[in-house]
Amino acid sequence: MSPAIFIDALQNELQSIEYGQEPPELYDPIKYIMNLGGKRMRPLLTLMGAYLFTDDWQKAIRPALGVEVFHNFTLMHDDIMDQAPLRRGQPTVHEKWNGNVAILSGDVMLVNAYQLLLHIEATKLATALARFSRTAAEVCEGQQMDMNFETRWDVSEAEYIDMIRLKTSVLLGYALELGGLIGGADEETTRHLYDGGMNIGIGFQLKDDLLDVYGDPAKFGKQVGGDIIANKKTFLLIEALAQAKGTIRDELISWLTRTDFNKQEKVKAVTAIYDQLGIRQLTETRINEYFALGFANFDQVNADPDRKSLLIQFARQLVERES
Amino acid sequence: MSPAIFIDALQNELQSIEYGQEPPELYDPIKYIMNLGGKRMRPLLTLMGAYLFTDDWQKAIRPALGVEVFHNFTLMHDDIMDQAPLRRGQPTVHEKWNGNVAILSGDVMLVNAYQLLLHIEATKLATALARFSRTAAEVCEGQQMDMNFETRWDVSEAEYIDMIRLKTSVLLGYALELGGLIGGADEETTRHLYDGGMNIGIGFQLKDDLLDVYGDPAKFGKQVGGDIIANKKTFLLIEALAQAKGTIRDELISWLTRTDFNKQEKVKAVTAIYDQLGIRQLTETRINEYFALGFANFDQVNADPDRKSLLIQFARQLVERES
Repeated sequence: MSPAIFIDALQNELQSIEYGQEPPELYDPIKYIMNLGGKRMRPLLTLMGAYLFTDDWQKAIRPALGVEVFHNFTLMHDDIMDQAPLRRGQPTVHEKWNGNVAILSGDVMLVNAYQLLLHIEATKLATALARFSRTAAEVCEGQQMDMNFETRWDVSEAEYIDMIRLKTSVLLGYALELGGLIGGADEETTRHLYDGGMNIGIGFQLKDDLLDVYGDPAKFGKQVGGDIIANKKTFLLIEALAQAKGTIRDELISWLTRTDFNKQEKVKAVTAIYDQLGIRQLTETRINEYFALGFANFDQVNADPDRKSLLIQFARQLVERES
Repeated sequence: MSPAIFIDALQNELQSIEYGQEPPELYDPIKYIMNLGGKRMRPLLTLMGAYLFTDDWQKAIRPALGVEVFHNFTLMHDDIMDQAPLRRGQPTVHEKWNGNVAILSGDVMLVNAYQLLLHIEATKLATALARFSRTAAEVCEGQQMDMNFETRWDVSEAEYIDMIRLKTSVLLGYALELGGLIGGADEETTRHLYDGGMNIGIGFQLKDDLLDVYGDPAKFGKQVGGDIIANKKTFLLIEALAQAKGTIRDELISWLTRTDFNKQEKVKAVTAIYDQLGIRQLTETRINEYFALGFANFDQVNADPDRKSLLIQFARQLVERES
């Protein structure tokens, strides 16, 4: 068994989903965003979670894609709220069509996500959907918190971690838990899978913040420093704001409030402030803590070692990624 | 048993629902829109549907409110898309807060709707949710069609009926079907309930269009002629556009394209055109046809006559309403 087999199974099934036909303004954007690509990390986690406990992991494919459709629904609506022009290098739905189309297509996608999740056997359905619904509400809570942070200068580390936990990590946890549930894991085991996915997810998101500043431009794929240019409230900026005193603080605030600046110069200056404050090391420490928590959660999962190593390897890739 | 008992039960339970607390921007708008009132027609239909087949109609309360929360979710998002300033005489959510809040709160409401629908016994859950999801997608299809019609002058009667069927009527049908399902009705019976609710719903929406023009100002509650002033593509306007020829057509088009006009004068003139074309009678005929279809569907429902008369009486009120 290899991740490539899971990926192929997901891609095949993705192409066969019939979201609907009419009116085209409603369904074309769904096909569009689902075909923009992405790592399919969440449904992969679901399939790996199922494979831990059953040979019949194929029965997890449709529910796994439910999680992926939900994830893409959140991207479609977040892009409206963030007024983002591009998603994976292509025009966002509200740019290519319009805001109303993006709202309504997104709404249908959320319904589609539930429809895919209905392909779970009756005895497990209520649990799977209750946990999914809780997770979905949390993802929205995280997005609202993220928007609220935009206008605040005093976000604490705990608040930030709580926000990324809700906005990003709970869905990674749920994706893995769902696989376990479908595969036949007991309640305690699915809890460990959830916790593991969630903790790895927090580390993953923190690493995202780190790579934006300290990533290797040759490997990173995106423009290094993009978050700095946009004043994005990342873990690094929040820590810097919490720690900077005196002239360093004045300099940081001055870069954050300037409207006319040279981008490269700003990236260089803010990175230098981070360096002075030891933000890189602090971030790396926190990343390693969450990854360690995640792997400790996985240690508690009682499953065939060969199958488990597939999951562990996949998590390691997330940990060690450079892009 | 009386509808008042159902209404009380719904209102009590509505007050006890905990949508969530934090962040408040996410959950306050949900409480706000749910407390704006409304006739609670949909959850009432669910309770009546359940009461047809069981004394334990209380078990349908939470799922019934799921349908009501879903309905209010569609109102919240439709109001953004329609740029509506008021809903039931109060500021809409996107006006009182902002567009992003209305998008995200609405998203959580759709999740909340599913959460309430999860309070259905396991053997019926998959059916109830599959039918709900199909209906929810159809409601979105109807809304998109409605928006598409705004810029068209050649909408056919069949297209219009199809639009209101999707946007409004399928949810009324589902509300009743859901009650029957929870109450223990067999598949054929729930189908009759769905068809009955849907057909009454089409008649109900057509009557809405009719009352806007021909309603008694003393009873109607809203401004008579509001749809005419706004050029809203109602059944009446669509029929008039389809039938008007020569000078009458020119006059109608002239009123529809004028940007500077006296409101009362426009209402009077367009109503006169409707009168000339016999639109009132045609609309009444169609309303009666759909109501007759609906009551014929209810005739097929095999249930205790006393309990059934409660549903029939309620449907009659919808038929005979003047506001």
